[in-house]
Amino acid sequence: MATQPELEHRKKTFGWAARDTSGVLSPFNFSRRETGDKDVALKVLYCGVCHTDLAMITNKWGSSIYPLVPGHEIVGVVTEVGSKVEKFKIGDNVGVGYLVDSCRSCQNCDDNLENYCPDFIITSGAKYIDGTTTYGGYSDSMIVEERFVISIPDGLPLDAAAPLLCAGITVYSPLKYYGLDKPGLKIGVVGLGGLGHMAVKFAKALGAYVTVISTSPNKKKEAIEHLGADSFLISRDQDQMQAALGTLDGIVDTVSAIHPLLPLIGLLKSHGKLVMVGVPEKPLELPVFPLLVGRKTIGGSLVGGLKETEEMLDFAAKHNVKPDIEVIPIDYVNTAMERLLKADVKYRFVIDIGNTLKQSS
Amino acid sequence: MATQPELEHRKKTFGWAARDTSGVLSPFNFSRRETGDKDVALKVLYCGVCHTDLAMITNKWGSSIYPLVPGHEIVGVVTEVGSKVEKFKIGDNVGVGYLVDSCRSCQNCDDNLENYCPDFIITSGAKYIDGTTTYGGYSDSMIVEERFVISIPDGLPLDAAAPLLCAGITVYSPLKYYGLDKPGLKIGVVGLGGLGHMAVKFAKALGAYVTVISTSPNKKKEAIEHLGADSFLISRDQDQMQAALGTLDGIVDTVSAIHPLLPLIGLLKSHGKLVMVGVPEKPLELPVFPLLVGRKTIGGSLVGGLKETEEMLDFAAKHNVKPDIEVIPIDYVNTAMERLLKADVKYRFVIDIGNTLKQSS
Repeated sequence: MATQPELEHRKKTFGWAARDTSGVLSPFNFSRRETGDKDVALKVLYCGVCHTDLAMITNKWGSSIYPLVPGHEIVGVVTEVGSKVEKFKIGDNVGVGYLVDSCRSCQNCDDNLENYCPDFIITSGAKYIDGTTTYGGYSDSMIVEERFVISIPDGLPLDAAAPLLCAGITVYSPLKYYGLDKPGLKIGVVGLGGLGHMAVKFAKALGAYVTVISTSPNKKKEAIEHLGADSFLISRDQDQMQAALGTLDGIVDTVSAIHPLLPLIGLLKSHGKLVMVGVPEKPLELPVFPLLVGRKTIGGSLVGGLKETEEMLDFAAKHNVKPDIEVIPIDYVNTAMERLLKADVKYRFVIDIGNTLKQSS
Repeated sequence: MATQPELEHRKKTFGWAARDTSGVLSPFNFSRRETGDKDVALKVLYCGVCHTDLAMITNKWGSSIYPLVPGHEIVGVVTEVGSKVEKFKIGDNVGVGYLVDSCRSCQNCDDNLENYCPDFIITSGAKYIDGTTTYGGYSDSMIVEERFVISIPDGLPLDAAAPLLCAGITVYSPLKYYGLDKPGLKIGVVGLGGLGHMAVKFAKALGAYVTVISTSPNKKKEAIEHLGADSFLISRDQDQMQAALGTLDGIVDTVSAIHPLLPLIGLLKSHGKLVMVGVPEKPLELPVFPLLVGRKTIGGSLVGGLKETEEMLDFAAKHNVKPDIEVIPIDYVNTAMERLLKADVKYRFVIDIGNTLKQSS
């Protein structure tokens, strides 16, 4: 029989957890390990609400373990460090993202690409190396090995920094890897949610001419006037799409719904790159000939490594790239999930864990 | 009313053409333009028989113009040069590949990537800039502007050089562009026809460990003992495919039939690349999540530019990379097409135009 969560370790912890596939979150007492030699303990201050949290609490991918404490866009302050911790001290502002461990011995780990380690351990709802469950950032504290703790640079507000740790790095990393980070490039962004709005901001900060591609004409004003996009294409408008054929160097596609790729491939110049960061549940239709005639590529990308995440935060601090957030108390989280499901948020909920998560709540 | 082919230009020419979608080829009198200032005239010696020829003569893609003289793997000897031709002289061995012209002013043309020029003109069955039809290499002569004529290096047999001009460059170019040309890489080749057998040979010559992936167990001996592949995977053998998960740096997929991509994506290491060079008629199913978790890419590639084609020929001559060919007389071409349709050729038919194409045939 599994050990009860509150007895698994010695350090009492409190958070909110989903207990079943209804996904409803409620107060939850559990425990975390004591701070090891290489561990950093932090008091959680803010935690972003990612679509993945919604997928995990409702067991959308069939891999969830309950009780499930979501949250992997975590910002906090260091409260304790192990004796061998070199990089952090008590009082530092730090973050924890999508991963809390990896094998540390494969080529990807050697290359600071822990996010592609086949044995990485996600921050929430996975089994840790000691066999215990990982609980995420909808909780008062975290204990994480130093390598997987991210330094938050001065100049980034702590609440807005949280979504950078997943939404931010998820779009920043492919812009870099796929060579879409050169000033003057024409970059498309498909979908204008948590990921999409960050893609617009990062691409703009990198010097691109940014076109938002959306099914919703009513997002045009917002995309251009508020987010700073240069252009807006309604994907259902054949004339607009036809006129824009072959104009983009790259596209970041953030949409998880089933959608046609052919129009997007058509928007690319020769040698252009379509990067998928959303997770459609079913296969999409891939027309092959259009890839051949322009030597175009379709690639994927999944969050980023720890080193690149710190680089991304430094870039964000320097260029004032911040997500648009709606800060909420923990009590509001179930409503927030309902709104997230309807895409009713501009553009990321961030839970004020530090001020609102109380044992009595 | 269209001018009759034999009166279109002043230079009488003889070849074999398809007259309708039956695709049956028969003797055909037509004409070519006189040799212009920048033109090279050649007597055709050999012409490879490509799957595209079969597709064109039967109007598989709906764009064919009849009468249609196929052939774009053309090797011959220069018989006349225009006054401004700098690179060639009478008696030179030369080739003509997939293209006979392009816009010459776009970025791709500036970059020696005429094969991605949106206005390129194919060697057979297209409309030339002067409005006349392009006729391919199943004919006694060609007139082609210097830029689109390829020098055949010493050391390559002229008959075996012909298929390099399409099949060869089609697989060589993506190995280079997608970074799959480094010694020691593990490269998969899907399909073992005209393209696939060249992919094995080029990848081996580039220093790769080459795995052939095929539905046909009976090709194993041939792939390894004759073509020099290092390993063979039967794509329908779940155990073999499972054991090979995550082992390949890149795959060249030459298959034009509808086939699943998921098993191929699975064979790739993180950051691996699946390159499509076949042309499936319908969209394939693209599972997106497997691309994300390993930052994998799927890309296309279409023949190659003129400069790269000459580089490829030099590489082939230096490393003794030659296609396996079956040399046939022109009278056999309709039978050859029937056999090609059944994949009954190892691995490329080459028509001995010089010795067998006669006005009386």
